[in-house]
Amino acid sequence: MAQIKNVGVYTSGGDSPGMNAAIRAVVRTALYYNLEVTGIRRGYEGMINGDLFPMDRKSVANIIQRGGTILKTARSEQFKTVEGRQQAYDNLKKHKVDALVAIGGDGTFTGAKAFGKEHDIPVVGLPGTIDNDLIGTDFTIGYDTAINTVIDAVDKIRDTAESHDRLFIVEVMGRDSGLIALRTGIAAGAEAILIPETKTDLNALYHKLEQGRRDKSSKIVIVAEGEDAGGAFEVGRLIKDRFPNYDTRVSVLGHIQRGGRPSCQDRVLASRVGVAAIEGLLAGHRNEMVGIINGEVAFTPFENAIKHFVEINPNFLKIMDILSL
Amino acid sequence: MAQIKNVGVYTSGGDSPGMNAAIRAVVRTALYYNLEVTGIRRGYEGMINGDLFPMDRKSVANIIQRGGTILKTARSEQFKTVEGRQQAYDNLKKHKVDALVAIGGDGTFTGAKAFGKEHDIPVVGLPGTIDNDLIGTDFTIGYDTAINTVIDAVDKIRDTAESHDRLFIVEVMGRDSGLIALRTGIAAGAEAILIPETKTDLNALYHKLEQGRRDKSSKIVIVAEGEDAGGAFEVGRLIKDRFPNYDTRVSVLGHIQRGGRPSCQDRVLASRVGVAAIEGLLAGHRNEMVGIINGEVAFTPFENAIKHFVEINPNFLKIMDILSL
Amino acid sequence: MAQIKNVGVYTSGGDSPGMNAAIRAVVRTALYYNLEVTGIRRGYEGMINGDLFPMDRKSVANIIQRGGTILKTARSEQFKTVEGRQQAYDNLKKHKVDALVAIGGDGTFTGAKAFGKEHDIPVVGLPGTIDNDLIGTDFTIGYDTAINTVIDAVDKIRDTAESHDRLFIVEVMGRDSGLIALRTGIAAGAEAILIPETKTDLNALYHKLEQGRRDKSSKIVIVAEGEDAGGAFEVGRLIKDRFPNYDTRVSVLGHIQRGGRPSCQDRVLASRVGVAAIEGLLAGHRNEMVGIINGEVAFTPFENAIKHFVEINPNFLKIMDILSL
Amino acid sequence: MAQIKNVGVYTSGGDSPGMNAAIRAVVRTALYYNLEVTGIRRGYEGMINGDLFPMDRKSVANIIQRGGTILKTARSEQFKTVEGRQQAYDNLKKHKVDALVAIGGDGTFTGAKAFGKEHDIPVVGLPGTIDNDLIGTDFTIGYDTAINTVIDAVDKIRDTAESHDRLFIVEVMGRDSGLIALRTGIAAGAEAILIPETKTDLNALYHKLEQGRRDKSSKIVIVAEGEDAGGAFEVGRLIKDRFPNYDTRVSVLGHIQRGGRPSCQDRVLASRVGVAAIEGLLAGHRNEMVGIINGEVAFTPFENAIKHFVEINPNFLKIMDILSL
Repeated sequence: MAQIKNVGVYTSGGDSPGMNAAIRAVVRTALYYNLEVTGIRRGYEGMINGDLFPMDRKSVANIIQRGGTILKTARSEQFKTVEGRQQAYDNLKKHKVDALVAIGGDGTFTGAKAFGKEHDIPVVGLPGTIDNDLIGTDFTIGYDTAINTVIDAVDKIRDTAESHDRLFIVEVMGRDSGLIALRTGIAAGAEAILIPETKTDLNALYHKLEQGRRDKSSKIVIVAEGEDAGGAFEVGRLIKDRFPNYDTRVSVLGHIQRGGRPSCQDRVLASRVGVAAIEGLLAGHRNEMVGIINGEVAFTPFENAIKHFVEINPNFLKIMDILSL
Repeated sequence: MAQIKNVGVYTSGGDSPGMNAAIRAVVRTALYYNLEVTGIRRGYEGMINGDLFPMDRKSVANIIQRGGTILKTARSEQFKTVEGRQQAYDNLKKHKVDALVAIGGDGTFTGAKAFGKEHDIPVVGLPGTIDNDLIGTDFTIGYDTAINTVIDAVDKIRDTAESHDRLFIVEVMGRDSGLIALRTGIAAGAEAILIPETKTDLNALYHKLEQGRRDKSSKIVIVAEGEDAGGAFEVGRLIKDRFPNYDTRVSVLGHIQRGGRPSCQDRVLASRVGVAAIEGLLAGHRNEMVGIINGEVAFTPFENAIKHFVEINPNFLKIMDILSL
Repeated sequence: MAQIKNVGVYTSGGDSPGMNAAIRAVVRTALYYNLEVTGIRRGYEGMINGDLFPMDRKSVANIIQRGGTILKTARSEQFKTVEGRQQAYDNLKKHKVDALVAIGGDGTFTGAKAFGKEHDIPVVGLPGTIDNDLIGTDFTIGYDTAINTVIDAVDKIRDTAESHDRLFIVEVMGRDSGLIALRTGIAAGAEAILIPETKTDLNALYHKLEQGRRDKSSKIVIVAEGEDAGGAFEVGRLIKDRFPNYDTRVSVLGHIQRGGRPSCQDRVLASRVGVAAIEGLLAGHRNEMVGIINGEVAFTPFENAIKHFVEINPNFLKIMDILSL
Repeated sequence: MAQIKNVGVYTSGGDSPGMNAAIRAVVRTALYYNLEVTGIRRGYEGMINGDLFPMDRKSVANIIQRGGTILKTARSEQFKTVEGRQQAYDNLKKHKVDALVAIGGDGTFTGAKAFGKEHDIPVVGLPGTIDNDLIGTDFTIGYDTAINTVIDAVDKIRDTAESHDRLFIVEVMGRDSGLIALRTGIAAGAEAILIPETKTDLNALYHKLEQGRRDKSSKIVIVAEGEDAGGAFEVGRLIKDRFPNYDTRVSVLGHIQRGGRPSCQDRVLASRVGVAAIEGLLAGHRNEMVGIINGEVAFTPFENAIKHFVEINPNFLKIMDILSL
């Protein structure tokens, strides 16, 4: 068992719903194992600025259902430098922090990896991002909530699209991953999804839209923000040019996808990996991300986790074609 | 009591949540009074195209909780012409429709008014629009649902804004009315709202934002789509120029505001005015919109209803200033 | 202008969604007028126990969207005694509190009224209860949220009732008021509602249920908890005896009606009356409840507010009959 | 490839959210493969009564987001008899149905198994139940929605429990499975859960509640409806006897857990297994349930699927203990 007395915990990168549930799990598990807990505000920036404070059981009371992160998050250019990381390490030493739990995405783990190379302090990561683009976990904390936020929004858009026989191009988040578009595309009964992982075939899209035109009704096309045709507005423009008689509108869902009360599965996932992070640190794990694969806790080295060649299951794409006819 | 045997009902203009509840109330009340009901699909366009069909009790079963409108809606350039309106009237005669209930906004009532001048058929209107910009009713059908959709979205945006200490400019609907921005601005704890009814004072806005900057935290500014500074993107651009150090983002909520399951008050409002519309027609009302003012049913001539000089209660603006400090 | 320096604020009685928005409005408005604010936890019990603490702007940051009350609430047998109230007053004096804002229902105002008779300290009340049974305000803080929570639940029940052709008896809150049942009954498309304000005619209810039985489908009956037939379980028993062939189930919605994020209108109402409470105290109001009547701020003496002979609009009952046929 | 021309589809047993999405997937996939589709209303009862009708693409338009089942469901005592099943088979033959997709739980598959023994018609099942108690699939259609409905309700209860420092005993569904209680218990930050799979140790429960009493605050205990201590009311009674000074309330969530718009994952699951059911029938599968295990489609013979010895992951129970301290 590693000699750990004081675990530092922080959230970094884009926030996601469930981060608070993860913080709570980390804090309470550390206390359960008689460790101290130090909260670090605003990620690496706070680590550099010395924004550290002791946390106890009450610090995380009633936060499991809250979106956002009570520890906040921020970009840090400084942490990308050796000096910045040295300053961060000095602060950790000053506060007697001897282990870290980093909650975030690949940017967070890239930073943690560099940090762990230069300084002897074990870091374990939790997959906090709505994009679901990390290797080493079936789902990331926040993905389930985000896809539900999206279909809640698209259900509303469907109502007005049906009233007006409109075609809506809806843009969803995902950075350079189409995983949010994938599941929400199926769940929304979309005609098609445009995702970065597959080359966008506009002619195929036009063909699909034309076929459906016989029976006047609503149509939804979901576009992932990173896909190659240029985003929802560009796709909307192209479709309006091609089909001037369609009543076409565009909706960019935006940052509602990052907030909101976390779903049940996100709270459970965050709790499971939060507990596992502390137990993992005590068992000697370092520079690894904790995830859940096939229902079981799994540890994956940072350098593999951030590769995010998350495959698109071709079944999903076939399903969408079949069901939207 | 007017001699009415067959009431035609239609929805027109932009759709709004609660229109289905209104259709249901109109249909069931007409049947209660032993009238026949004819549904007209796609508003005036459908009236011109003869898209009319008989409705019964089952036609409106279980639609009270559904967003959108089962009768659909559409623009009609033709209805703006005398010939178009004549064709519409001929279809009504063919189907023996001798009274109309028009559910929509000022565009709908403008058309109904012209129609009522040229042809002897009584029309009563129901205020179906999310904009709440009709005279003759405290609230329009769909407004309450829309403001809740907005704050639900802004609550999510607040989560991520808090995590990142960001300033969000959020654009809401309203066409040329600031009423959605007004109540949601208060309910979201916004710093400020920019609405068409008041000249946008950007310096005052900058001053307000600067004052709040002391304590790093999130800020929300709500912009109505019709305000004079140019919409959320333009305001965002101006703020980013003025305050390059603020982390500023823009979110246009878009068409989610038009859909969704109607709120309790929207269903009750729609039901009350739907019943009153039929009873009003039977009592001889024509060319009037039914609304609820101070809890009581009220009839307002179309030409007054569409004036929509809906006043902004100055109290509301004062409250926002006081509470956002 | 009354000489007020330090306003005490507390919540009492049953909690309701929007109480936090009201607390926030009271605190920020007091600060706006350069008054100090003292929070009193757990209502009168806390006043007696000296559970008082200074509040500032940050005390109420980000609470506008939260259900419940950060000041908590509790019953107090002691406050019903002269000694108890004397002890409470002594604590207020010790903390230099010279005015009070009481957020609650008639129990709260009854206590405030007695207190105001014995001790020279102005008290203004805010209507915080989901029951909507106070005179002096069209709506109480929490009612709008509660009726939406109810229809959200009943919409779900409707889904499963439709699948199984079931009759559901649903019990809603209201203590001895049928106002929640009234609006939700209309909004849910209920067959009937049973409320305390009208004598329950079971034969009329049986007749109505029989009539609807022709077309196998779902039926909902909404029962207010205080009605005379004995609540949903008793009504369910009677109906099962009368109609052994109906598939009848009972659902008591319970305490979900008391919580949840407050609706837009509840936040706006709470904000308006919260601001008006402070301004009212400064203008010399005392022993009055602030409400909104017909869109305008109104002050009503406590003894009138708690009479709660809130009339049931007979129109509402007629509407339900017409629309459920 | 089996010779199938006309697939019959039905829902049976308790309804669950996502059944409509499953029906839609079955219908559209059958049409995609040029098969005819026959809908059977009210499960086995409808099969016996000849309530069969042709379905096409439009039959399932816009139902993916709707709770309940458009095909309805019902109990059938007759189908438990050989004569009943013969009559059902005769109806299928009359309508030329030569394959079946059965959407339901173990009652449904037990019936299908018996049917498939007596008559030569292939049946494939889809796991439609909120209980998640079928072997052969990680999750059943409706479970994800139900656990989110539960935590949505418990979040509201938490608000009012916090305001009043109350202990709430909340009863959730699951028949004789504790799987809903398990995940929602973690997600709600419950003190403890009482489930059928583990013997209820009341003394351990009392001990846990006593420990937490130091800091006055809210507590939640989640009770699965089939657990051995007698349900939430009985547990509530026992706790009130043991701790007369606790303010204890009971809430039985009831049938809201069966309805509501299906979650994203439930729609995706329903769509995947719906497509796989038709493809499975065409590939020769019969008397098997289609599920998703570890992300992949899997077929499980009915007799194994209904054994439902779904294990409780001991990790989950440990997590709840650690995190509720």
